[in-house]
Formats: sequence, C-alpha cells, structure tokens
Amino acid sequence: MSPAANENTASLLVSCRDRTGLVATLSNFVFRNGGNIVDLDQHTEHDSGLFLMRLVWSLQGFALDRAGIERQLQAFSSELGLQWTLTYGDRRPRVAVFVSQTAHCLYDLLLRRQLGDLRCDIAAVVSNHSTLAGVAAHFDVPFEHHAITPETKQAVEDAQQRRLDELGIDLVVLARYMQILSPAFVDRWRGRIINIHHSFLPAFIGAKPYHQAWERGVKIIGATAHYVTADLDQGPIIEQDVARVSHRDDVEELVRKGRDLERQVLSRAVRLHLERRVLISGNRTIVFG
Amino acid sequence: MSPAANENTASLLVSCRDRTGLVATLSNFVFRNGGNIVDLDQHTEHDSGLFLMRLVWSLQGFALDRAGIERQLQAFSSELGLQWTLTYGDRRPRVAVFVSQTAHCLYDLLLRRQLGDLRCDIAAVVSNHSTLAGVAAHFDVPFEHHAITPETKQAVEDAQQRRLDELGIDLVVLARYMQILSPAFVDRWRGRIINIHHSFLPAFIGAKPYHQAWERGVKIIGATAHYVTADLDQGPIIEQDVARVSHRDDVEELVRKGRDLERQVLSRAVRLHLERRVLISGNRTIVFG
Amino acid sequence: MSPAANENTASLLVSCRDRTGLVATLSNFVFRNGGNIVDLDQHTEHDSGLFLMRLVWSLQGFALDRAGIERQLQAFSSELGLQWTLTYGDRRPRVAVFVSQTAHCLYDLLLRRQLGDLRCDIAAVVSNHSTLAGVAAHFDVPFEHHAITPETKQAVEDAQQRRLDELGIDLVVLARYMQILSPAFVDRWRGRIINIHHSFLPAFIGAKPYHQAWERGVKIIGATAHYVTADLDQGPIIEQDVARVSHRDDVEELVRKGRDLERQVLSRAVRLHLERRVLISGNRTIVFG
Amino acid sequence: MSPAANENTASLLVSCRDRTGLVATLSNFVFRNGGNIVDLDQHTEHDSGLFLMRLVWSLQGFALDRAGIERQLQAFSSELGLQWTLTYGDRRPRVAVFVSQTAHCLYDLLLRRQLGDLRCDIAAVVSNHSTLAGVAAHFDVPFEHHAITPETKQAVEDAQQRRLDELGIDLVVLARYMQILSPAFVDRWRGRIINIHHSFLPAFIGAKPYHQAWERGVKIIGATAHYVTADLDQGPIIEQDVARVSHRDDVEELVRKGRDLERQVLSRAVRLHLERRVLISGNRTIVFG
Repeated sequence: MSPAANENTASLLVSCRDRTGLVATLSNFVFRNGGNIVDLDQHTEHDSGLFLMRLVWSLQGFALDRAGIERQLQAFSSELGLQWTLTYGDRRPRVAVFVSQTAHCLYDLLLRRQLGDLRCDIAAVVSNHSTLAGVAAHFDVPFEHHAITPETKQAVEDAQQRRLDELGIDLVVLARYMQILSPAFVDRWRGRIINIHHSFLPAFIGAKPYHQAWERGVKIIGATAHYVTADLDQGPIIEQDVARVSHRDDVEELVRKGRDLERQVLSRAVRLHLERRVLISGNRTIVFG
Repeated sequence: MSPAANENTASLLVSCRDRTGLVATLSNFVFRNGGNIVDLDQHTEHDSGLFLMRLVWSLQGFALDRAGIERQLQAFSSELGLQWTLTYGDRRPRVAVFVSQTAHCLYDLLLRRQLGDLRCDIAAVVSNHSTLAGVAAHFDVPFEHHAITPETKQAVEDAQQRRLDELGIDLVVLARYMQILSPAFVDRWRGRIINIHHSFLPAFIGAKPYHQAWERGVKIIGATAHYVTADLDQGPIIEQDVARVSHRDDVEELVRKGRDLERQVLSRAVRLHLERRVLISGNRTIVFG
Repeated sequence: MSPAANENTASLLVSCRDRTGLVATLSNFVFRNGGNIVDLDQHTEHDSGLFLMRLVWSLQGFALDRAGIERQLQAFSSELGLQWTLTYGDRRPRVAVFVSQTAHCLYDLLLRRQLGDLRCDIAAVVSNHSTLAGVAAHFDVPFEHHAITPETKQAVEDAQQRRLDELGIDLVVLARYMQILSPAFVDRWRGRIINIHHSFLPAFIGAKPYHQAWERGVKIIGATAHYVTADLDQGPIIEQDVARVSHRDDVEELVRKGRDLERQVLSRAVRLHLERRVLISGNRTIVFG
Repeated sequence: MSPAANENTASLLVSCRDRTGLVATLSNFVFRNGGNIVDLDQHTEHDSGLFLMRLVWSLQGFALDRAGIERQLQAFSSELGLQWTLTYGDRRPRVAVFVSQTAHCLYDLLLRRQLGDLRCDIAAVVSNHSTLAGVAAHFDVPFEHHAITPETKQAVEDAQQRRLDELGIDLVVLARYMQILSPAFVDRWRGRIINIHHSFLPAFIGAKPYHQAWERGVKIIGATAHYVTADLDQGPIIEQDVARVSHRDDVEELVRKGRDLERQVLSRAVRLHLERRVLISGNRTIVFG
C-alpha cells in the first residue's frame, strides 16, 4: 500500500487457540465502530490448532480513540485468550542499528529509509568502532561510538542500554555487529532485536560460515535474518535467501556474493518487522507476506 | 492442509466494489451457522477500490445445507453486489487434458494426480494424435483420439465439446496441444481452460518462442500458464517461472530446460485453479497463495 | 550440444598440481592428431594450486584409435602427474536405479531418458519392494525385486552386486531408496553412486528432514544430490536446489514441495555425471556447467 | 580470484570462425613465452560454427612485453581471422556514471567500488540534475552537472563527450539516466555503454514498464542490463534478473521491488564487463561466467 494510505490505519496481530467466531468477533468490532478492513490474512494451523491473523483496518472516521480500541482488545483478550499486538500506521518505529566495521548492511538500511522503503526513524547508529561514523553522518543519523575491551564490555552494554531507553528505541538491528550481547540485554529486547547471520541456517552455525560452506562444497550459499535469543544463531528465523556458487568462486568470492544476500535479507526482515507482518510463535515466526 | 481435513470445507471466492462491513457480514454468516473459518485471505486494492477475498470454512456441524448456503450468498449478492464462486472440498473437479505429441506435461499432471497433489479426477486425455495413448492407459485414464484435418477441424471440435459435456468436465487443460481452438469453444470454456505457453509472456508471443529467445540473447527463459481467451497468448496469467541460460545452451538445450518449466508451471497453475485460489479480474488474476 | 553432434567426441576430465604448459600440452595433443576442441573449461584454484579441466574434442578424422589415445594420456599422467578420466560420446553409460516405494524420482529419470535428456541406458530398476514394478514395465525397463529383512539384508546386497556386474552397470542412482548400504558396497561404487537427500545439506542431516525444517521454521527448503560415502549424508555434493515455503505450508505440504525439488535435483545431478561434467576433488565436486 | 592475484594477468577475449588448432596455437603462445594459464573458457557454437574463448594467463616472468604481446596477437589475427580484445589486470578501467535523480543504482555502484567488488576508477558522476551531487561527494567522486533543455541538449552532449575524452573514460554506465542519447554519441561508445532497463526485456519495452507489468498481470517482474544501441531497449543483453510479485503489490510496490533488481542487475553487468567476461556477437552477448 502507498505510504499515504498507510498512515491512517491500525494493524492487529493475533494468535490464540482456535475457536469458532474469532474472525466474526474481530471484524464486527471494526465494522460496528465504522472502520473498514483493507487487508486480512488469517490461517489456522491444522496440527497445532493455532489461530493466526493479521488484520489492517482504516481508522478514517473510526468511532473509538486509541485508548478505547485497546480497552476493547483487552476485553477480547480476557474473554477469548487472544494474544495480540496493535500498531498504528502514523507511529514511526524508532530503530537503532548496531555495526562494527563492515558497511554494506548499514548503507542498505539507511538508503532504504531515505527512499521511503522502510517506514521508521533510524535514531542512532551504535558501534564499537569509529569506522562507519562518516556513513551515519552522510545520512544525518547520530553515531554513537563506544570502544569495547574485555574490561569495559559490560559497562558499555549498560551505557548502550541507557541510550536506547533515552532515544525511545523500538527495534535494535545488528547489521554485522561483531560482539556477543549478554543474555540480560538479549532478554530485555526479546522479539525486538534482529540479527543477520551469513549462512543458510541451520547450516554453518558459528564462526566463518563462508569458509565452512567452501569446505563442504555446497552449490548454494545463503543468509538468514532472525530474532536474537540467548542461544547463538538459534532464534526465530524471519527471512532467508540464497545464491548459486560455482567452483570458480573461492572463499573471497563467496564473501562477496554473501554480502549481497546479507544486506537484502536483513533489510527485508527489518521491513517485515516494521510493517508488523511477523508474529513470533515459539521458536518459529509466522510471516504474513 | 491435509486432503482429509480439506474434504469437509467450503471455499468462497469474492470480488466486488469495496464497502465497509463485507468481512463482518460474511464471517458472521459463517459463525452464526456454526461454521469455523480455517483460512481467510482478503485484500482491498487501493487504486481500483476492489474488494478481493478467499474464505475457507469447515462445514463440520454447519447449520445450513448447500442449497441454503447458496440462497444466502445469492441474497448477499443482490444486496452487496458480490461476485462469488463457491466450491466444496468433497467435490472433485473433473478435468480433461488436451495433448498432441509431447509427453512431459501430460506425465506431470497424471503423476501428480496419482500422488494426490492434484485433487481432481482426470476424466479423459483428448488428442489429435494417438502417440500418447499408452501414457493415458498407464495411468488408467480414458484416451480420446480424434485425427484433425483442415476439413474436419470444426467437426472434431464439436465432437470434443459433446464428449466434454457427457463427461461432466469442469476444467480443460491444454498440455502442449498444438491446435488453435475456435472462438466459440474458447468462449464456452471461459475461465475454465488453461494453456501453457513456452515463454515468459508477454515476451515471445507466437510461434517458436525458444528460437526467438535465443536470437534475442536473453539470459533467462520462462514459461507461462494462462486462461485461454480469443486473443492468442493474451489471456489472464495464472503462473510463471524462469530458468537461467548461458551461451553454452543452444536452442535445443533451451527447449530441454523449457520443458522443465512448462510442466511445473502448468501443474502449479492447475493446482491453484483446482484449489480455487484463482480469481479472474478483467485480464488479470488474483492468486491467493 | 545436440545428441548427434555429441556422438563422435571424447571428453577428458583432468585434475593435478598446476604447472605451466598443461593446456598447451593437451591441446597440442588434440591438434597434432587432427582433432578439434569444441568445449574447454579450465580453472586453476589459486589457494590450493589445483589445475582443473574439462576438454571435449571432436574425433572426426582423429589420427589415433582409442587405445592410442589412452596410451598417450597414460604417458602424460606419468610425466605430468595428471589424474584423468576419459569417456566417449558414443558410449552410453549403463545405469541402475534403486528405489523403494516412492515413484516421483523414478518417473522423472525414466521420462527424461525417454525424452533423450539423459544419454544413458537404464538397464534395471532395483527395489526392495514390488510397488514400482509397473512403472519400470511402462518404460520397458527390467525390474529386479529383492525383499529385504534384517536377516537377508547382506545376502540381498551381495545378489544386487552380482546383478550390477552382470549388467555391466556404470552408475547406481538411489532414487529415494530407503535402505542403508554397507560400507563395502559403497566403497565398491565410490564416485559412481548418487543419492538424493531431501534437505539442503548440511542442514537437517538424518531422518525426517521436512519435520526438522518445519520445527526450525526455515523459510526455504532444499534438496541435495551427492555421491554416497560411508558417512551418511556427508559425501561430495553434486547439485542442490531450494524452494520458498510459508506458514501456510504444513509438513505434508513441505513434503509435496520437496518432491519437486528431489526429482529435479537428482535428475540434474545424474545428467551432470553422465555428461562427465563432475570431477571429485576430496570431499568436494567441481561441476563444469 | 583475489584482487592481488588478479593484478599481474592478461585477459584475452577471442571470437572467430572455428578451425582446428586455435586453442593449441594460443596456449602454445602463452607457454612458449613462460606464461601460465589460470582460467580458460572455450566453446564452439555448433550451429553458427563460431569459436568463442576467454583466456586469462599470469604474466609473472612472461618473456614478451605488452607491445610484443599485441604484435603477436595481431599476427594471429591476420593469419587466423581472430577478433580479439586484450586487457591487463593492473589497468583499472575508468568509468563515468550518468544519472538523473534516482539514487539507488548510483549508491550501489559507488559502494561496490569502495568495497573492492568493482575493479575500476569511477572518474565522474555526470548528471542533468544536481540532486545527487552529495552522493558523489560522499564517495569522493567528481560530480559534473549539466542542466539540459531541448535547446541545449546537443551542446550538453558535446560537452559531456569532451569531458569523457579528457577524463580518459573507458566505460559509460547509464544508472537510470532519463535522457535519450543521440545516435552519434551511442555509436561513439558502441560496446562501452551500459544501460539498465526496468523490465525483463523484451517484455515491456519503452516507458513505464512497471505500469505495463501491473496491467498485464505478470507474476514475475524483471530488470535487464544491456549495451546501448541506436534502437532503444534493443541492444545486446548482458544480464537479467527477476522477482516474484503478488496481487498485494500495487504499482508503487513493483517499483520498490524493481529498484532492488535494477541496482543488482546493473552492478553485475558492470562487473562482468570490467572483468572482460562479456563478448559481443551480433546482437547477443557471450558471458563467460
């Protein structure tokens, strides 16, 4: 949908045990209050009995204000066991991008934001190196540099956390950030921190995945964007993509081809999250395409 | 969904001018009568103002019989301007496959039907040659052979039409059938006759598309499945796919690679049609994936 | 190249330590004896220093007979340390296809052989079940059925081995054969036995890969054709391909989508092997595309 | 290959009527003078009888200097009818990028140059608008702005031509440049000017291809990089790629998805050209992958 049309909408993500009448109840709620559904994607998993839905409606002339909407959803939640998240098209999420020294994913995110592909404010680029300060400056985004040593690691993370709070950040994106975050930090940002791993997970978990891929002689390489959890490279997958390689591609060439995958997969995952198309269900995601 | 679970469902395809309350009205209808929606995919085109929906519900314990359901939908239609088609999961569509002398698409359809991928009965293989009689026989499908000459062409088509009626055919699939059908025949089967064209339409309309593709030096070839209309290769597209080619591929090799595309694209299009995921809107299709 | 043109050619695969003059020596050999090179693909791996080449030349008016050619290559081998294999376009490899009860890969191989896509003779379909006897019969290929119990397993394998010898088999294809072959058998067929694994290796090694893929929530599934070694699912990879999946796809649907991948990946790998485009180098393959 | 190893090499592209001994003659030439072939890709088109080859050799310790190499190739040319181009790994081609007001392709080229993916000097960004001056400045590339009116169009083109000469430009890249160049200009840069067209050519030639694609209801969109000729959108195709679209994608969304294709396809085509992997043969290209 066009950004303009998008502004005056509400998006509702729902998951719960299936029961009859869920769609009717929620669509009646929209209709009774004068709203118009513009996009609805609902699916019930036969095996698990899980009801999954994304519902977007126009707020043009809607009878309830936002507090009223949320009160009503709270009531449905108690009555029907809904788990839900609600977002408004006019609320631009605030994003912090964490980087180290490689630029390609950062450029991609900043450029897409500039082009209007990503509806968000990138409020800060956060790094343990100063290398990419110029990239942030070029796109008029504040750059926060905290050098990290084994001794300062925890203190820096605490400082980063405070800045994220001050900046009112909604989403943290690890755009090839080469530091492992503490379980406490990860837990604090559960479901709101996205990483790009440079392999087709679950293949080649851990370090140097392109070297691993070359050694194994795979014919296709990949990249995976996922929510970060305490288990490294094990969080819910949001998006993946792949590219063919041949025997003419040495490791250096895999890295080069991989860069293209990484930046695209990460940007697509961020976009899907920002458009509230991603519902986390256990260690899986439901992506409403 | 599993075939078993699929049996006792109704699928509704709807298109109409958008207005508020359409989802509420239809989901209430299902709910009030004791049905349970298992899959709902709705989208309103912002530019055209067109409301498009696919709704599948379980008929387990549904209060209305089929006549009752249709009466109610008829009422909605008058009241709200709905255009709708309704199908039941326990009604296996009856398909006739038209072929000439090439086997790959025919095998693919027959094999997938046998594996349970295509929920239909293939009631006849119809051909202007006897070449593929053995293939039909191997899969226990009746084979109808009508030799065609310029003089007999119309008479044969009339005979084919009568047989399709006798057999109660719902869908005609042209699986590399090398005869042009008359406008009257095409009109009679509007929206129920699928062809495979061996190019990425609208590129390379007409004869010998692989030769055209080689001459033009494209780096990717394609195949396109579409509903047949009176304008050759111009009907609504259902599905397309592509494959990379290199300078080592001569025309013969493009033909070989193309065969793989043709059979897959045709089978996917037939499957989408059989599952009632395809809604025709003007000269475009809406495919609920 | 067209099958006809292909007939009167020799194909040479070479790997060795790189040194200057290798291409000159081998192309001179062809030229001096009146041959004409029609396809040459050579690459030296910078890191490993490995020289890799596929050379196809026309035997039209070639001065040496086959014994002469091989003597000369033997001489190069002693002198330059070449490892080589040589095949002739008019020699159709003899293939045995091992199957259990699933038909899709078997149909694909038999159909492609019939269409002329696979230049080989399929000399036997070998199975531990009688289920697919009719498929082999339809394509006029002998079917060998040996029921297997834990007690007879070794004896059956010995009998199979004898039959492969009697039939002069060059290549064994495991087309969803659900028995683990003994190390001795695998060793005997090293580099001449191809398996299809229903995942994107090295992800989801072992049993029920589609269930594993669903549990992990991957967004793309794959299939992998590889040479069989004593380590299950660890042999050199020949070909892989992938397909997107969504949350609407349950395990059953992954299996269905996977079937398409399996048959195509296996058939492509067999074709690459038959055209002598695959060179095994340690646990990797070099595929001359 | 790594950039370092690449420096001290020569790359030869050859096309001519096929005859026996061509590979032997050229590889002997390299060998006799102490060179080492590191990559050779040769193919003879069976139907046209065209011999096509890319040969890369290491100049480490090569007996001839560059003038000597070229004299020898000239001699082969007279004797054998070779058409050839020769380039050296240590010679960085000089590129001018023409843009109007859209930034995505320009960023992609500049970023890849910075990352070392494109081995070239981008000597100027040339534009009929000043919009993208800041992008060029960020990457330290001179920006040349010439406003164009119908009256000044020819004079501007003449001035651009003079600047390209002064700057010693080897390749002109039209990165969404929204002006039609004169036949004289195009002719002057024949084979050295690359354009990106935002459709899967030959589908949707001309203006507003994404609108055309939406109207036609295609399920896949594409982008095409090609050498520019006097016939608009008709020059030899270098590279193409595609992306799936659905009914949820309006024209604006096709444009967004298309941007990703455009920048990647253009950058890949430029890279292929810079690595001298592209041989123009009539209105087709041979791309040595």
